[in-house]
Amino acid sequence: MAGSPSIAITLLSGGLDSMVAAALARERGFALFALTVDYSQRHRVELESAAWVAAALGAERHVILSLDLSAFGGSALTDDIAVPKEGIGPGIPVTYVPARNTVFLSLALAWAEAAGALDIFIGVNAVDYSGYPDCRPAFLEAFGRLAAVATKAGVEGRGFAVHAPLLEMSKADIVREAARLGLDPGLSWSCYDPAPGRRHCGECDSCRLRARGFVEAGLADPTDYAAAL
Amino acid sequence: MAGSPSIAITLLSGGLDSMVAAALARERGFALFALTVDYSQRHRVELESAAWVAAALGAERHVILSLDLSAFGGSALTDDIAVPKEGIGPGIPVTYVPARNTVFLSLALAWAEAAGALDIFIGVNAVDYSGYPDCRPAFLEAFGRLAAVATKAGVEGRGFAVHAPLLEMSKADIVREAARLGLDPGLSWSCYDPAPGRRHCGECDSCRLRARGFVEAGLADPTDYAAAL
Repeated sequence: MAGSPSIAITLLSGGLDSMVAAALARERGFALFALTVDYSQRHRVELESAAWVAAALGAERHVILSLDLSAFGGSALTDDIAVPKEGIGPGIPVTYVPARNTVFLSLALAWAEAAGALDIFIGVNAVDYSGYPDCRPAFLEAFGRLAAVATKAGVEGRGFAVHAPLLEMSKADIVREAARLGLDPGLSWSCYDPAPGRRHCGECDSCRLRARGFVEAGLADPTDYAAAL
Repeated sequence: MAGSPSIAITLLSGGLDSMVAAALARERGFALFALTVDYSQRHRVELESAAWVAAALGAERHVILSLDLSAFGGSALTDDIAVPKEGIGPGIPVTYVPARNTVFLSLALAWAEAAGALDIFIGVNAVDYSGYPDCRPAFLEAFGRLAAVATKAGVEGRGFAVHAPLLEMSKADIVREAARLGLDPGLSWSCYDPAPGRRHCGECDSCRLRARGFVEAGLADPTDYAAAL
């Protein structure tokens, strides 16, 4: 339909970062097709947050796709491996899910092709992150080059854009951006190892990054942490 | 364990091509971790063939992963769109599943990382094929470059090899290779639109390519086609 907005496929985990990335897509005038993957993550409560965020952002469609990555094993987020609580260390942590963002972007690409969309938004950032290889600029560039040759649109000379608007932001920047966009961070979920009563544990890497972001931004943190550091 | 064979993740659709590709991996001394995706394809009978092939090849593991690509739509293989029967035409046909091989290779990459494997086998070929963009050498090269930056192994300087041993083979070559390897092509399934009684339709692109391969190779075709062309 002439004049209807372009569609952006937005990866929505239920976390703060993907909420802000999706809101930035909306701010730029895209209609949101939000994609959440139920990959048997131990923090499945984030799926509920993803549904809240999709609704709050007025997403045109929201697909929660089941994909049991625990069949492959190898991550504290899908296996019986303890989530580290001692703070962010050097190297790639056990919470790394093998090739997760490659898989998620591939699924976004599949939906983009089927829906005739040429834009994908992902909330990765390479500043305050856990050191995962698939959150770095080199990864996003390589995926963009793949998308150009992997798809019908690419072959026909149109091509995809993979947007990572948070790539150079600190967590404090992201918290400030959420405030600027009028978002409720309380809808989002970050914790890898939820405590009883739908509380953030307060000790995993993801909780530490989240809490520090609010402190550094000088903004009130609505998160209910089971343990305060 | 010292002396144990290296693992290859082998994408196994249940078709003739992936059967031959996996057998070539085995011939080269790899232990086979076979990966089949149940993507709500209308030719679900191929999943049964995949299990037969995995058993016949002595695969160490066989995972059939459910992934409902019909949530995205856009293909005759997952939607209520008729499978073309009039022969192979120019352009990309409606049986193209958006970004399918990108998704499948990403899943293989995830398993490879989790299992500590550095080799992936895929049975694509760019000679007798249906014109899908994700069966071309440029696609495989781009995926290889992505894998090098997307993964822990890549960051640590090891790196993945994506093997497509059939890439330059005609379907007749593949049929001859199956015979050389002592495989039973009757275990494999090619048809996109199965006829009642577990018969190949004989008219879809995939059946036409299969049947022509046996004729051109001068070898007996064990396939039961509902319609002979």
